[in-house]
Amino acid sequence: MLINCVAYREGRKLADISVEAISDYIAMPETFVWVALRDPSAEEMAEMQHEFDLHPLAVEDALSGHQRPKLEEYGDILFLVMHLVEYGPTDDLQIGEVAVFVGPNFVISVRNRSTQGFLGVRARCEREPHLLQQGAGFVFYALMDAVVDRYFPFVDALESELESLEEQIFTPGAARENIQRLYDLKRRMMVLRHAVVPLMDAAGKLHGGRVPQVCAKSGEYFRDVSDHLQRINGTLDALRDTIGTAIQVNLSMVTIEESETTKQLAAWAGIFAVATAFVGIWGMNFEHMPELKWTWGYPIALAVIAGVCGILYWRFKKSGWL
Amino acid sequence: MLINCVAYREGRKLADISVEAISDYIAMPETFVWVALRDPSAEEMAEMQHEFDLHPLAVEDALSGHQRPKLEEYGDILFLVMHLVEYGPTDDLQIGEVAVFVGPNFVISVRNRSTQGFLGVRARCEREPHLLQQGAGFVFYALMDAVVDRYFPFVDALESELESLEEQIFTPGAARENIQRLYDLKRRMMVLRHAVVPLMDAAGKLHGGRVPQVCAKSGEYFRDVSDHLQRINGTLDALRDTIGTAIQVNLSMVTIEESETTKQLAAWAGIFAVATAFVGIWGMNFEHMPELKWTWGYPIALAVIAGVCGILYWRFKKSGWL
Amino acid sequence: MLINCVAYREGRKLADISVEAISDYIAMPETFVWVALRDPSAEEMAEMQHEFDLHPLAVEDALSGHQRPKLEEYGDILFLVMHLVEYGPTDDLQIGEVAVFVGPNFVISVRNRSTQGFLGVRARCEREPHLLQQGAGFVFYALMDAVVDRYFPFVDALESELESLEEQIFTPGAARENIQRLYDLKRRMMVLRHAVVPLMDAAGKLHGGRVPQVCAKSGEYFRDVSDHLQRINGTLDALRDTIGTAIQVNLSMVTIEESETTKQLAAWAGIFAVATAFVGIWGMNFEHMPELKWTWGYPIALAVIAGVCGILYWRFKKSGWL
Amino acid sequence: MLINCVAYREGRKLADISVEAISDYIAMPETFVWVALRDPSAEEMAEMQHEFDLHPLAVEDALSGHQRPKLEEYGDILFLVMHLVEYGPTDDLQIGEVAVFVGPNFVISVRNRSTQGFLGVRARCEREPHLLQQGAGFVFYALMDAVVDRYFPFVDALESELESLEEQIFTPGAARENIQRLYDLKRRMMVLRHAVVPLMDAAGKLHGGRVPQVCAKSGEYFRDVSDHLQRINGTLDALRDTIGTAIQVNLSMVTIEESETTKQLAAWAGIFAVATAFVGIWGMNFEHMPELKWTWGYPIALAVIAGVCGILYWRFKKSGWL
Amino acid sequence: MLINCVAYREGRKLADISVEAISDYIAMPETFVWVALRDPSAEEMAEMQHEFDLHPLAVEDALSGHQRPKLEEYGDILFLVMHLVEYGPTDDLQIGEVAVFVGPNFVISVRNRSTQGFLGVRARCEREPHLLQQGAGFVFYALMDAVVDRYFPFVDALESELESLEEQIFTPGAARENIQRLYDLKRRMMVLRHAVVPLMDAAGKLHGGRVPQVCAKSGEYFRDVSDHLQRINGTLDALRDTIGTAIQVNLSMVTIEESETTKQLAAWAGIFAVATAFVGIWGMNFEHMPELKWTWGYPIALAVIAGVCGILYWRFKKSGWL
Repeated sequence: MLINCVAYREGRKLADISVEAISDYIAMPETFVWVALRDPSAEEMAEMQHEFDLHPLAVEDALSGHQRPKLEEYGDILFLVMHLVEYGPTDDLQIGEVAVFVGPNFVISVRNRSTQGFLGVRARCEREPHLLQQGAGFVFYALMDAVVDRYFPFVDALESELESLEEQIFTPGAARENIQRLYDLKRRMMVLRHAVVPLMDAAGKLHGGRVPQVCAKSGEYFRDVSDHLQRINGTLDALRDTIGTAIQVNLSMVTIEESETTKQLAAWAGIFAVATAFVGIWGMNFEHMPELKWTWGYPIALAVIAGVCGILYWRFKKSGWL
Repeated sequence: MLINCVAYREGRKLADISVEAISDYIAMPETFVWVALRDPSAEEMAEMQHEFDLHPLAVEDALSGHQRPKLEEYGDILFLVMHLVEYGPTDDLQIGEVAVFVGPNFVISVRNRSTQGFLGVRARCEREPHLLQQGAGFVFYALMDAVVDRYFPFVDALESELESLEEQIFTPGAARENIQRLYDLKRRMMVLRHAVVPLMDAAGKLHGGRVPQVCAKSGEYFRDVSDHLQRINGTLDALRDTIGTAIQVNLSMVTIEESETTKQLAAWAGIFAVATAFVGIWGMNFEHMPELKWTWGYPIALAVIAGVCGILYWRFKKSGWL
Repeated sequence: MLINCVAYREGRKLADISVEAISDYIAMPETFVWVALRDPSAEEMAEMQHEFDLHPLAVEDALSGHQRPKLEEYGDILFLVMHLVEYGPTDDLQIGEVAVFVGPNFVISVRNRSTQGFLGVRARCEREPHLLQQGAGFVFYALMDAVVDRYFPFVDALESELESLEEQIFTPGAARENIQRLYDLKRRMMVLRHAVVPLMDAAGKLHGGRVPQVCAKSGEYFRDVSDHLQRINGTLDALRDTIGTAIQVNLSMVTIEESETTKQLAAWAGIFAVATAFVGIWGMNFEHMPELKWTWGYPIALAVIAGVCGILYWRFKKSGWL
Repeated sequence: MLINCVAYREGRKLADISVEAISDYIAMPETFVWVALRDPSAEEMAEMQHEFDLHPLAVEDALSGHQRPKLEEYGDILFLVMHLVEYGPTDDLQIGEVAVFVGPNFVISVRNRSTQGFLGVRARCEREPHLLQQGAGFVFYALMDAVVDRYFPFVDALESELESLEEQIFTPGAARENIQRLYDLKRRMMVLRHAVVPLMDAAGKLHGGRVPQVCAKSGEYFRDVSDHLQRINGTLDALRDTIGTAIQVNLSMVTIEESETTKQLAAWAGIFAVATAFVGIWGMNFEHMPELKWTWGYPIALAVIAGVCGILYWRFKKSGWL
Repeated sequence: MLINCVAYREGRKLADISVEAISDYIAMPETFVWVALRDPSAEEMAEMQHEFDLHPLAVEDALSGHQRPKLEEYGDILFLVMHLVEYGPTDDLQIGEVAVFVGPNFVISVRNRSTQGFLGVRARCEREPHLLQQGAGFVFYALMDAVVDRYFPFVDALESELESLEEQIFTPGAARENIQRLYDLKRRMMVLRHAVVPLMDAAGKLHGGRVPQVCAKSGEYFRDVSDHLQRINGTLDALRDTIGTAIQVNLSMVTIEESETTKQLAAWAGIFAVATAFVGIWGMNFEHMPELKWTWGYPIALAVIAGVCGILYWRFKKSGWL
């Protein structure tokens, strides 16, 4: 579906134009066209391919989706695929895509399987004509920046989830829940990582050394995006490391708890085994067991048993088993 | 066994030719020959070596098989080995090979220990003469693309196997089966990795910087193959990481379950030990045990025992041991 | 808040100057201005941006904070972000930031969320005019050196904490506390690592090969800072490795202790089970049990039971179970 | 000990020569000398050093042995050390060494602490004069190729050992043996790795970019050796990874088995504890226990106990504990 | 403390000279001065700094110590820091340092916190004038070589310690001691690693590509040192890997042992629980228990109990639990 198609000159909007008029506008000097598509049909993409002379391999990638983030140069046209991360119905992370074609005088953004639009980006660009007059390269930057900025809340959510987990990790009895949450956290972290790492490689090619012509004027802006991606990546690396350690620590805690339970079990088993042995002794049927005839035999027996068990209890308590 | 041997000019098929006629055709301008062999005998390979002037080391590799994927340049002839993955009789992954020789005016594909043919590739090429007229390089690309495309279903199978495992990993009692499936998954993943990683390195040399002459015209196509391989590799890396975590998590779950069992065992052992101690007391043979003579002694004793056990049960329940 | 703003020429302080006078002073030859700000308002930063012609992206970073350490070149102006580590109220590590802008004739340090000032650095620089006359580059070095020097006590604290842990790691019964301390140690280590690693990359660009103009005269000093950072990084790497091993070892120790407890439990359970079985035998109500009528039956029975238990005890002792 | 010393010209053997005659032969054009030594004495090596003008550091290395594999250039003389792997008396892997000196017109192989000779290599070279006329470089290749080919059976042995282990890893009760075999496998794998990895680095310098003069003619042959080494290395990497996973899996299996044992223990303990409590009740000595006087009291009691135990057994069976 | 100060020309000792005379000697052509200091005072170092025009940062490093090994170039003066490893009073590894300044015509070695001297190095150099005439660079090599040679015995000690551990790792009951020794081994390994790895990087800069002037003549000697360091590093890497595996294996062994103990415990508990249940049955006080009145009731009962227990014992034995 075509969302909009606008021509710009010297940082200012010229007009909303029809698809057929595109070829006229991109022939004008100092003018560029910015087209936004959403889940386009094969026909719409064919039209774009024809108007802008796009490479068939790139068009196919934009149509079929399910690409990893990547940056490709086809002559002087750049083709960038980025992942859009959003929450699915069951709080799981879902991945949509946006493919961007950038030429000297046009930008095409093709959004697939995602509810996040880029109208805000267009509005912001139009409010800053002194920047927008850098041309298609600046629009390219603005789109990347918008996508990358949308990663931050997800990373922050992972971080605060991990923090809340860390408070619980030394709580006895929470191990089963912790391990499930840690595994889930790891999976979400890897979804984000998958979106970020290849994009970081791509962004690195847009500033510094040899840079595609269309981005040359906006080098510092692309470095800024690159820096954001590196920040996210650093945080994800730290998360990954901490999750790994937390899984190990959780296992240690389970083992420690089990060990403590075993000790308690051993202690109580010992105490009752002693009591049982004693009562068994006086339950034997020998004829000549003088203590059985004593008037105070029974209370003394109970006292002896209680005493022995008490001593055992006290020793176990002292050695930390109980 | 020779499967077929065809000469092409300007993207169109000239004729099925005999092996003896090859040298005539490759001498013609703008013409190339495409030979397909399957499990060839030493004699067939010797004939090819003679007709196309192939290097003996490459011929030996193509004959004996059991190579890792690799790309080698012998003068202006390229030699590529790729793995063909297929399911064996017991659902295990099996590895076949295809070796490809590419010169300025010929392509030879030598398939070993595999049931997967490339007739479809030839048919598709012949349907697209505007691409096929790029020459031997395009055929080379088409073969690589076909092999790499056949990896995707295996990777997808691994991913959905892992997803079904993940649903089971927190189910009590499934640990033994899970660990077997995880180990099996890891092995299959490594078979694919072995096929993909060296091929990715090889594909990287066919686009971008200094590129062999024969691939120069099809650079963007080889980049596409390279991109597919990187995507597979990224997925395999994520699989590897997730399998590792899942093995750890599975171990944690076993330990947690054992810990819960130990607690239950401890609790029930405690309850019955108390009951046994009590009945033992009233089973002692002291003469002076007044409660034994009470009319309601027996029911009271039973009530006391039941009461104490009930209290214990309630406390264990509250603390989560039962 | 503006802390101070001073002009220097040939290594000596000229005067405390007002913000408005800055542009006059930086126009003079051989003169540079050193401005120190703390938690500046947007207006103060805008003023600086105007006086020194700073890039808006850098100014935004300096204002908003929460950056990773980084070095960026904007034309001939360098922009460096460093982390300041300090103890929070609960002994946790907290991160503040200092952003430094360095141009050919000015240095601006912008400190955020930190109580650590740099007055000492300024005083030391003013006491060494022969070094200070290297210009803004030397001030830049002095700030980096001060920040890096403040990392050492934290690293030392981690190391001595780990050493005290290592003494406790083989102590029975300390596992729970050890694992908590190890996890905490790891977290602090990662905070420092986050501060150090990117800064090390940055420092590496300030000596050796192609170096920004403003640092060219002080190359050996920047190499010294770089060397300090590498030393810290080496120590942190070793800490990380050792913490990982210590977590594993701690788990092993817990398992070993549990194993020993299980053995003891098994041994005592065995001894008492034997005693209970014996007393049970003589508690049976068969009519024809001649030993029950013997005069010495009871003491002999007790002796037999004690004897058997004693033999078991001795055997368990010998095999190390008790 | 000198094994043999032969002069070659244009790929054909000229004569077995004496050590003293070496300097005459190497002065002739198109001629090279191939000397083979085994566990040489210091005097023999000194003679070689004198005849061929070898560097004292290399001679020392060849004499003392216990080097890691390495390639060094001394002027236009190459010095290569390779490990020879063989089975020791107790089936352990033992390491011998062969040091090779290659100059424009000579090859010296010095074998130490190994029973494997290179007579076969010499015979094969002499049968292929068209290859041998490439000169000393080809002999150098033939020696490397022979050494590397001898690694394959060891790698294959490791692989089939691992496969037989994998079949046993999920067998209950084999854990102790498995872990010993896995550890042993890892050690052997590391011995091979130690032999292969540095040699792979060395072989990489003998083809491709800047190549020592003496190897220039045989580039494709050295690439072939390099490729073999990479194949071995890939296999060893996969082995290493799989061994690591297998150790983890083995630990998981032990824990799972223990967990199952604990459950069985808990179940049986529960059943018998219940029986013991019941018989204890009817063993109490209260006067007023009417059921004791019933004619069918005893069989009913036994039936009740058997019934309760049966129900417990059935429930444990159903929940998978028994 | 000044140990000695000697001038050399053309490989031969000229004279022991005073510190004041140094400047005279280093002005002479073909002459160099070799100064050895031990735990020098600040004054001594200041004197050296003045005589040889050393850089203040290097002098500070040499004085304060506690550096990581490193190589720095100050103009044409090289500054190298190496670690000296020795056994402390409690068999722990202790680290001393030696800092070496090398200029075109001087060598200064500054030893700190170490009892190991370098008089042997000086003696050996003086015995080989043909090598010593390479100048200060050769002395530099000789010092490095001496330090690196002293690492070997420590590495060998680690290896044989690990070997003795490996024999014990599958011995039941040694787990606690093993894990302590493994942890200790790891710590010592890391001390050595810390000494070796940065020094290896440093040594790599002294041969091969661009090499400092003073080392140019002795390139092959520095490559030899570099090779020794790589050998040590390879061994340390293998040690690290093996220690990691051994810790895992040790944990597995503990778990296996515990599992076996649990099985034994379960088996014996089962046997005695059965016996106890039986004797309990015949201890019940029912009036109508005909077997109690049989003459052979008691022996038959004992036989039944022994029989049942025997069958259980035999079954447990067969299934490997006992």
